[in-house]
Amino acid sequence: MSARSLLTLGVIAVACAAVTATLAQSDNWFPSRWGAPDQRGAANRVTPSKVLEAKNLITKGAVYQLGRVYEAGMPIFGTRHFSLKIPQTFGPLGSNKLMYHDELVSAEIGQVGTQFDGLGHIGIGDLFYNGNDRADFSKPDGLTKLGVENVGAITTRGVLLDIPGLKGVAQLAGGYEITLADVQAALAREKAEIRAGDVVLVHTGWGSLWLKDNAKFNSGAPGIGLEAARYFVEREVVMVGSDTWATEVIPNPNPELQFPVHQLFIPRNGIYIFENLATEELARDGVYEFAFFFAPLKLKGATGSPGNPIAIR
Amino acid sequence: MSARSLLTLGVIAVACAAVTATLAQSDNWFPSRWGAPDQRGAANRVTPSKVLEAKNLITKGAVYQLGRVYEAGMPIFGTRHFSLKIPQTFGPLGSNKLMYHDELVSAEIGQVGTQFDGLGHIGIGDLFYNGNDRADFSKPDGLTKLGVENVGAITTRGVLLDIPGLKGVAQLAGGYEITLADVQAALAREKAEIRAGDVVLVHTGWGSLWLKDNAKFNSGAPGIGLEAARYFVEREVVMVGSDTWATEVIPNPNPELQFPVHQLFIPRNGIYIFENLATEELARDGVYEFAFFFAPLKLKGATGSPGNPIAIR
Amino acid sequence: MSARSLLTLGVIAVACAAVTATLAQSDNWFPSRWGAPDQRGAANRVTPSKVLEAKNLITKGAVYQLGRVYEAGMPIFGTRHFSLKIPQTFGPLGSNKLMYHDELVSAEIGQVGTQFDGLGHIGIGDLFYNGNDRADFSKPDGLTKLGVENVGAITTRGVLLDIPGLKGVAQLAGGYEITLADVQAALAREKAEIRAGDVVLVHTGWGSLWLKDNAKFNSGAPGIGLEAARYFVEREVVMVGSDTWATEVIPNPNPELQFPVHQLFIPRNGIYIFENLATEELARDGVYEFAFFFAPLKLKGATGSPGNPIAIR
Amino acid sequence: MSARSLLTLGVIAVACAAVTATLAQSDNWFPSRWGAPDQRGAANRVTPSKVLEAKNLITKGAVYQLGRVYEAGMPIFGTRHFSLKIPQTFGPLGSNKLMYHDELVSAEIGQVGTQFDGLGHIGIGDLFYNGNDRADFSKPDGLTKLGVENVGAITTRGVLLDIPGLKGVAQLAGGYEITLADVQAALAREKAEIRAGDVVLVHTGWGSLWLKDNAKFNSGAPGIGLEAARYFVEREVVMVGSDTWATEVIPNPNPELQFPVHQLFIPRNGIYIFENLATEELARDGVYEFAFFFAPLKLKGATGSPGNPIAIR
Repeated sequence: MSARSLLTLGVIAVACAAVTATLAQSDNWFPSRWGAPDQRGAANRVTPSKVLEAKNLITKGAVYQLGRVYEAGMPIFGTRHFSLKIPQTFGPLGSNKLMYHDELVSAEIGQVGTQFDGLGHIGIGDLFYNGNDRADFSKPDGLTKLGVENVGAITTRGVLLDIPGLKGVAQLAGGYEITLADVQAALAREKAEIRAGDVVLVHTGWGSLWLKDNAKFNSGAPGIGLEAARYFVEREVVMVGSDTWATEVIPNPNPELQFPVHQLFIPRNGIYIFENLATEELARDGVYEFAFFFAPLKLKGATGSPGNPIAIR
Repeated sequence: MSARSLLTLGVIAVACAAVTATLAQSDNWFPSRWGAPDQRGAANRVTPSKVLEAKNLITKGAVYQLGRVYEAGMPIFGTRHFSLKIPQTFGPLGSNKLMYHDELVSAEIGQVGTQFDGLGHIGIGDLFYNGNDRADFSKPDGLTKLGVENVGAITTRGVLLDIPGLKGVAQLAGGYEITLADVQAALAREKAEIRAGDVVLVHTGWGSLWLKDNAKFNSGAPGIGLEAARYFVEREVVMVGSDTWATEVIPNPNPELQFPVHQLFIPRNGIYIFENLATEELARDGVYEFAFFFAPLKLKGATGSPGNPIAIR
Repeated sequence: MSARSLLTLGVIAVACAAVTATLAQSDNWFPSRWGAPDQRGAANRVTPSKVLEAKNLITKGAVYQLGRVYEAGMPIFGTRHFSLKIPQTFGPLGSNKLMYHDELVSAEIGQVGTQFDGLGHIGIGDLFYNGNDRADFSKPDGLTKLGVENVGAITTRGVLLDIPGLKGVAQLAGGYEITLADVQAALAREKAEIRAGDVVLVHTGWGSLWLKDNAKFNSGAPGIGLEAARYFVEREVVMVGSDTWATEVIPNPNPELQFPVHQLFIPRNGIYIFENLATEELARDGVYEFAFFFAPLKLKGATGSPGNPIAIR
Repeated sequence: MSARSLLTLGVIAVACAAVTATLAQSDNWFPSRWGAPDQRGAANRVTPSKVLEAKNLITKGAVYQLGRVYEAGMPIFGTRHFSLKIPQTFGPLGSNKLMYHDELVSAEIGQVGTQFDGLGHIGIGDLFYNGNDRADFSKPDGLTKLGVENVGAITTRGVLLDIPGLKGVAQLAGGYEITLADVQAALAREKAEIRAGDVVLVHTGWGSLWLKDNAKFNSGAPGIGLEAARYFVEREVVMVGSDTWATEVIPNPNPELQFPVHQLFIPRNGIYIFENLATEELARDGVYEFAFFFAPLKLKGATGSPGNPIAIR
């Protein structure tokens, strides 16, 4: 047997160990570290001290909106839809001739465009965060547990990982898995660190396809895989976001797995995911650490929330 | 002629003067002070220095969510609706058995529940902010001007006016007009002041009827009238919000007027309105000055936005 | 033991026998008589000869619309909703100045107002018509079996049972169970008969509460119970409809049972139900036998259909 | 001047005369022949004698459904949408374990898929059927006049014009204008005639692109132009339908005109249009005269209705 064969065997052994570790973890992934009744997951990590830590990152008063425009032509996953119409004008009312417009929206509102994934969104088989069985809480009029109204404000320190900046490219390729080494190199380049209770935003450049080439945008995505995701779990972050529709790499290098990072983060660890963020201006301006502000819409029993989160430095 | 008659005449004269002033103002209320092409109105007052001013109000890291829960039973105005349903679960996908839920929402999404009124919402006859004629921008697929996606982040200093606290009551009565004297007395009591570029939240206690007595909640509301509203215009605020569905007093003391404060704020002065805010915790804790964070959903061509704004001290 | 006790025992024995019969029937209610793959149920009874039979009932050319108006204020069951809005006018287009309006509807469209219940609507536990398990066909984007698009046209002979006419009242009381004796007496009075492949419409007068007293309308309903329903099953009808929201008596005399007639008709026998029909004009005019025309909207994977069925004599 | 030039001039002269005629007609196209308050237009032509005439065409009891399946992937015009989802299953309820499904639909429900155009759909500038100005009846919560709930049942004699059958082709080309000569030749071939109060269905073969090549389907359509349309007006028909999304030829040979046949039929003459009908089986079976049954959903204040009309012979 050659040295190369031995190396190969070693790689396989490591891979098998990883698989075993994953399976082993599945045996006892609940109750959560915040107790069996908890419905907030890693949002519990947002403490007053994290708020003050975020505050101290505000030095210039420069505000970045991280939400994209919701519009009929935006890329959408699967059979979801987004419809916005303006009904006929109401009025005139009163001697002051009040006229007013409303807007009518029909959409999978927490799962289109810039979208925040709550704890009721993703399950492992029938089990969701804290081992909740979908038969018990997934009801037609809204989730009776794990609804996004429980999350609360995520007002904490944020870190941007500019991977294209690290690589010297404008955009990572679809299907590129951002490795732990990439993450660590980016942190070193940015002289940044990830702390417990932080929000991590992973810039990939994929968002530049938005409305420019929707078909390519939807065809796959660069993103983190299980390796980098486990690192974020260990760092005890609150949320991981990105400028792609999945945050994680699509397709997964293991063709048998569908959105495994979603499962690692959401049901197993109560860590939130924020998709389709506009991270390009933070990357352009080299804003690697910032104060992050977001509170999901309190949509009772919803799986997610639309949003326009704010980064300030 | 008796003294009483003279007094009556005087009141009428003052009233006529007010009406004349109103009419006079209507003669030249556009272009806006930010120029004829402007679509952001008073959001232009949110500057980096206001952000830093807000930052400095954060001393404890205490976060207040100001948004109410969106749910089927909430009070709703007129013929608007809110429907949220959870479709059948998707999956399982992959060997990792990914399951997921979405939510389907149909609603006048920017004009139900906690709602932020944008510049395309309110007109004076056919004219909206900056004199835009609705025939020119009110289109079926979204407003082509004044859409809420133009507003941007409202991250500034906030002031709460606790009027029930001032009056020593739990709740103001429906139809009670909060006067300028009330505003000034509340500011004095709170040792607070309103500065240019601020957000003002007016607590009335009316919000305690939410989901408790929806019929009464919808039947009217305490709130500011034109007098206090003009004061806020003079103070050059960005936005005025409240825990009622109108922010302004309903019905208006002048029975011929329908939502005149909406017209004064939105089309005439580009000042935003935020309705159905949960101000009760700020009042309870005596939080009169705070950092305020909100960015409307970028719903293209929408008249308003749902929200869960954040106050921090 | 007194005679009265014996009578009581006898009643109990009969009741037990009925329960036993019900349970016994449940043991082998599928496959359906039309075979295991069938998705049309009793619509298979609509044959060319039934169409010709219906044709021959047309003698005057008098047409009755049996659908009610769909509108925002109509009585609605549970948390369903109905919203219809007219968007801003499109146009003008071309030198001919084409203008056009659309309407935007959000609703549980097959289950509000006048509504036709398809075979995918009702289950006995997890089992639906032909023993289909909901886990196999109830998918987020539409039922993959038993969708209402499979039903086809119901063009056959129709019979109206005017029970208030029989009783000499304007309206049956909520909770009144129409018995087999009522059905037979009504048929005798009307000189009508029910034949295989017919549609039966049961007029109760309850529909006169529509939009007049929605709260009472929704609070219960007169209607057939299991006894009369079994008779219709034996007569091999295609569909039973009524001017109530349930067609069957609400509440059921047995407080433990919820909509048992729905289960007897739809999953067990493939017989359709049509609710909230406007039967009052047929009753007024004494139209007891007529040609009936209806074809559900082919809403792919839907559980029901709205409709405006037609009766002609 | 050559003979050719003279011919050209002649053509121009005829064209100018036609334009002049059109303009002249526009001067007095209302009130309608059914009076100024009428909201039913040509539906007034459906009389008991037409119903009996239709009845007598039923000889075999053969039923044809003319509606297509409504589904997410169907071709849709412009920015309209169609979303159907199945919410989580309700139940189990009662000792009988009732379970039930609903469906949730959001759509421009009267203007997607198989669609019946009502009198409120189309205007000439601001004027609609009977000269109604849209400012007077086009309201956000529904049209206050000309709503589709006014139409009533269309139960009359129907005639199919199989133009591809006439031409010996499977499908007419997009943009092909069906001429009056085509109509007359088809009638002669079919030994059929068009009578007052009839419904006319124009088969083009274009419907075979449905779900097969949606892009081509939407790119244009064969159909009648103003010439054939005027003939149908003269014949005093109730409705004209087709297997295309416009019924009329798209684009119109006159590039300045947008949907002129819609204007000729709907506002000027109260004649209805039914689009995206499944006419292929009638053509296949040579069913040229038949009984036609349809009643629009009574959607209050709607511009149109979905449908699954029935043809019987």
